[in-house]
Amino acid sequence: MSARPAAETMGFDSHLIVLFGATGDLASRMLIPAIYKLLDARDFGDTMHLLGVGTSDLDDQSFRGIVRDALLERGWSEEDAVRWCDGCLSYQSIKAGFGVLSETINRIERDHGLPGNRVFYLAIPPSVFDDTIHGLASASLTASHGWTRLVVEKPFGTDLDSARHLNSVLHQHFTEDQIFRIDHYLAKETVQNLLAFRFANMLFESSWNRSQIDSIEITVAETLGLEGRARYFDGAGIIRDIIQNHLLQVLTLVAMEPPVRLEADSIRDEKVKVLRSIYPVTRNAVTRGRYEAGEVDGVPVPGYLEEDGVPPSSKTETYASIRIDVDNWRWRGVPFTLRAGKRLPERITQIAVRYKEPPVSLFDMGGHCQVHANVLYITLQPNEGFHLTFDVKRPGEGMELVTQDLEFHYADAFGQLPDAYETLLADLLVGDQTLFVRGDETEEAWRILGPALDLDEDPLPYRAGTWGTEGRLRRPEEA
Amino acid sequence: MSARPAAETMGFDSHLIVLFGATGDLASRMLIPAIYKLLDARDFGDTMHLLGVGTSDLDDQSFRGIVRDALLERGWSEEDAVRWCDGCLSYQSIKAGFGVLSETINRIERDHGLPGNRVFYLAIPPSVFDDTIHGLASASLTASHGWTRLVVEKPFGTDLDSARHLNSVLHQHFTEDQIFRIDHYLAKETVQNLLAFRFANMLFESSWNRSQIDSIEITVAETLGLEGRARYFDGAGIIRDIIQNHLLQVLTLVAMEPPVRLEADSIRDEKVKVLRSIYPVTRNAVTRGRYEAGEVDGVPVPGYLEEDGVPPSSKTETYASIRIDVDNWRWRGVPFTLRAGKRLPERITQIAVRYKEPPVSLFDMGGHCQVHANVLYITLQPNEGFHLTFDVKRPGEGMELVTQDLEFHYADAFGQLPDAYETLLADLLVGDQTLFVRGDETEEAWRILGPALDLDEDPLPYRAGTWGTEGRLRRPEEA
Repeated sequence: MSARPAAETMGFDSHLIVLFGATGDLASRMLIPAIYKLLDARDFGDTMHLLGVGTSDLDDQSFRGIVRDALLERGWSEEDAVRWCDGCLSYQSIKAGFGVLSETINRIERDHGLPGNRVFYLAIPPSVFDDTIHGLASASLTASHGWTRLVVEKPFGTDLDSARHLNSVLHQHFTEDQIFRIDHYLAKETVQNLLAFRFANMLFESSWNRSQIDSIEITVAETLGLEGRARYFDGAGIIRDIIQNHLLQVLTLVAMEPPVRLEADSIRDEKVKVLRSIYPVTRNAVTRGRYEAGEVDGVPVPGYLEEDGVPPSSKTETYASIRIDVDNWRWRGVPFTLRAGKRLPERITQIAVRYKEPPVSLFDMGGHCQVHANVLYITLQPNEGFHLTFDVKRPGEGMELVTQDLEFHYADAFGQLPDAYETLLADLLVGDQTLFVRGDETEEAWRILGPALDLDEDPLPYRAGTWGTEGRLRRPEEA
Repeated sequence: MSARPAAETMGFDSHLIVLFGATGDLASRMLIPAIYKLLDARDFGDTMHLLGVGTSDLDDQSFRGIVRDALLERGWSEEDAVRWCDGCLSYQSIKAGFGVLSETINRIERDHGLPGNRVFYLAIPPSVFDDTIHGLASASLTASHGWTRLVVEKPFGTDLDSARHLNSVLHQHFTEDQIFRIDHYLAKETVQNLLAFRFANMLFESSWNRSQIDSIEITVAETLGLEGRARYFDGAGIIRDIIQNHLLQVLTLVAMEPPVRLEADSIRDEKVKVLRSIYPVTRNAVTRGRYEAGEVDGVPVPGYLEEDGVPPSSKTETYASIRIDVDNWRWRGVPFTLRAGKRLPERITQIAVRYKEPPVSLFDMGGHCQVHANVLYITLQPNEGFHLTFDVKRPGEGMELVTQDLEFHYADAFGQLPDAYETLLADLLVGDQTLFVRGDETEEAWRILGPALDLDEDPLPYRAGTWGTEGRLRRPEEA
């Protein structure tokens, strides 16, 4: 998405990653594997040093042991793993305070001759967020001789007020170009490709507007339920968990005008313009659902209210479909539907762009021959790719139309796609903010969805493992 | 393309086909096999009777013997073949005159209780054409108690004057709705599908104009040489043989406005409007080529002037590329190129619709990243289908665009396609003229190409089996 050179030629500055929450779930599930991959793919030499920070009382050796074991599991040789861990990894408990942390950082940089380029990566819960930011500031860690960058994981607040508060805490001590807010959806190859696809292909871009397009639907369907995250999820709901961030982000890329240049702020300016064109949703634009007991992949699963950790009085939605109107020159009148749900029959993330039907059906002769609108499906996962439905004449006598597919799958052309976190890490290290969320984007997204949050009414029921009986719960293919 | 019902439910009136040239090349190569197929596919019972007419002195029995052998070769049982040939086939030498022919027709209709529906199918050389039409008229065979239809094979004249003469002879004795001029290209499934594809798919139709399309190229490339037809071909040339009929017909379907209805005259009205929007070509819009000795598929082949039957003074072109401007509201400024050639390296008939490039290249960063125009390829033969090229981002860091294909092949979806002649015969028998060429279309086509005919200059040389060294002789993929 950016002007930076391709992987092989990319040079990273020597730097230190200070990873808060180094022994936590996010770090071990997503982040450390992505760092491994980045190291796998490139000959870093000693450019990257990693300082784990956490509440555990580990010493360097035990932290190195944990990481080394993981590297061995990924097929590194004992020699490489030991060399990298011993040479480049350290640990510091945050219980010692930010002053000690600052000393540790300075010592590592001195010992390794690092020029003071620093990433503070906050893989920590929101509850300790403010303290961590203020702590960094109190120890004068917001700037250095090199560059200092701050990585923030979602949630970026839980509503407009908290998002504003979060941004104001951040901006008290950091400038926006230091702040890298991660929404890993933005780094998926298929999402990155949205702009290339739109602005490099005149056939599609020339029809990408209210004159030719009937409706657009963006869906994240999951088969999973709570996966032990009941406490978090019941306080959040699917709108906060998926729609406010991932789906509105994808919507902005689908709907935005061509940017002046393909660079971070040109693109993010256009994304914000899309969000500013959207009024806060109305209550009747929102359909909420909650799964009841059912079966997923042949396995019986409990209903949401029966899940461990969910209070019986919960009104939290596990499914939502929200109609969004983008009130600008290009899109006025074209409904965008954002949908996300848990315990649906399949896992799929997909954009369906439905074109208008022809103004006159030349083929409707006695009702025998139906014309089907063209639909462009952009599948973000799994089996990433495009398919475009179009009608052709069935060979033989008479005029019968049948819908066929033009298909493209990334895997056929390019093999396995890069991991989103790996992409984000690489961008972070060269300072490219294109795939990171700007502060004003998060606030606009909360402004739009405010009226859909924490509604005090029971969501509509649907049986787990089904698309429900209610009209709006349907397979994305039937968009 | 028409409103008639699908094959299974189609009922044919009982009829008599009077096949002039029944023992000739065209009849045995194309027509009789197509009649077989039509019979194979449907339970005709005794609805079709066939009266062969020719200059040979055959009797019914010898004609039946010839056809029966051919049916047996196609896998019919002896019993079926004998039953059909004995019951439904007759022969009449034209040497006996049209009076006798008329008596024979009346006798067959009486014997078999046919209601007088008649097809006069003229599979005869142009030289005997006028006499045949006048002969039919002299014997009062231009009308009957049922319907009377006249089938005319190309060439429909050799220039504007001869085409006008031919039409005037025809119209002296027959009305236009009795006349079925065959251009078998029009009955190819892929050509028939052009209108379905255009008018059922808004994505394509909405961009099908001068705003979005850069150029359109229609190519018929053959590997064959003269195949023993030197006398005919040297008098005609590739422009008469392919471009004036097949390629201009395909052009009209690609360029036409939506018809009022999908019926013969609505469609042919729009096709004629396209031709009327085209000025006669200018000399510098025409590039002519002539093959020299070379190799096709590894086999050495002589140059055109060395072929048996070609006079050394010949100026006949074996390749031509003609730029056509369609000067109407939709197409002004979009060049159409019609190209056809013999002894080229491959056999392919293809329409290439090249879209414009994006107005601003967001991706051109230091010349590394080129945007490629979308091209829609409609392949009429072989391997009939569509493919659409489009650019995507190459996965990984940086922004590199790579061109990928969305592909559709008829064979994958529908298996083998119906034979064009079979389609035309079935249409003929229900009186649907959609896929037949109207008189005014043939005259307009000759008007346009007149200045390109019989040029008194040597065509540019190209080596047989190559796309030549001259710029315009190139693979259609490089359109």
